Amino acid sequence: MEDLKNVYISPLPDSPYVKPFRFNYTQNGKEKTWDLLEVHDSVAIVVFNVSRKVMIFVKQFRPAIYYNCISPEDRKKTTIDTTKYPASLGLALEMCAGIIDKNKTVEEIAKEEVLEECGYDVPLSKLHRITSYRSGVGVQGALQTFFYCEVTDDMKTEKGGGVDDELIEVIEKTIPEIEEMVNSPGPITSPPSCLFALMWFLHYKADKFRK
Amino acid sequence: MEDLKNVYISPLPDSPYVKPFRFNYTQNGKEKTWDLLEVHDSVAIVVFNVSRKVMIFVKQFRPAIYYNCISPEDRKKTTIDTTKYPASLGLALEMCAGIIDKNKTVEEIAKEEVLEECGYDVPLSKLHRITSYRSGVGVQGALQTFFYCEVTDDMKTEKGGGVDDELIEVIEKTIPEIEEMVNSPGPITSPPSCLFALMWFLHYKADKFRK
Repeated sequence: MEDLKNVYISPLPDSPYVKPFRFNYTQNGKEKTWDLLEVHDSVAIVVFNVSRKVMIFVKQFRPAIYYNCISPEDRKKTTIDTTKYPASLGLALEMCAGIIDKNKTVEEIAKEEVLEECGYDVPLSKLHRITSYRSGVGVQGALQTFFYCEVTDDMKTEKGGGVDDELIEVIEKTIPEIEEMVNSPGPITSPPSCLFALMWFLHYKADKFRK
Repeated sequence: MEDLKNVYISPLPDSPYVKPFRFNYTQNGKEKTWDLLEVHDSVAIVVFNVSRKVMIFVKQFRPAIYYNCISPEDRKKTTIDTTKYPASLGLALEMCAGIIDKNKTVEEIAKEEVLEECGYDVPLSKLHRITSYRSGVGVQGALQTFFYCEVTDDMKTEKGGGVDDELIEVIEKTIPEIEEMVNSPGPITSPPSCLFALMWFLHYKADKFRK
């Protein structure tokens, strides 16, 4: 996952992934604009292995995080020096998650992601829909539905790690390790949705798994 | 804030706000691309009023959220029907926050935002830097630094509500109201950074303010 080469920035061509547009409106009589991106709704799943009392995370290289670790001067260079900026800078620890791009229920998509990314084959009845929220407020405001799922070792039927070109590592953390992570002074290489999920788990679920 | 008219979508011109580009790289010998946005680092501040034991939120119209409430068919229309889609759909409840676009410390920027948005004039010593994390992992990976700040009624020297064209409403919630919010089945019209902040507060701070 950390073998990174030939890193460079280029202009955005017509992209199927990032579709920017301008939103025009008049609020309280004043004409305004706001620039936005078209994004998919998504699911995120807190997967807790009750056999060994560990939280299941996915770790992967995220270009968006890696890019933001590069100084503004170095970003302008023809290629990025991967000795100065190793791939490890962009490795994010996240909850299992996926976008809703198929004609399936959010529960079915959550089930698929838990299998593909984490390797656990869970029945739909184990996926508890907790809430949903807006994944951002600035340029993307898609809905993310948040699930909680308790798994056991015998549900682990596959290796996980994603499909196709995905390079995903499955990581486990104990409850004290989760507490250490959220109490770190940072920078934590995780998004706020992961931190929300961890604090939600610590506050509402963790006590019953402590000795 | 809810007077909304003349809503329509147009192509993105050369925008100072949304600067998309393509990130090219070779990982484990395989050439890949990822489409990204250039975004600013930011601060977010949990402001808790200890005089009246209420959390201070900011509420504002967010085009990104409003747009995502519109059906794919209706998005294609020349103008958006604001009778069918009232402005209230896009009103987000958030923590006080701001981008780092000035040559100031994160503490100074946090102090400015608390004054401009919430109306509290806080000394820098009251701003406790808790941690920092990546604001996203998909198209934007900027760093957000998270502060906790206890305020008293006598620090409220201004009305708040933002500067220039900002239309921001200051909202207060009691601890039981915060608990009700995070336990709602959703959709919660807030981003995960706000929910992380609320869970962090409930788990680590709220007890000392309960009767």
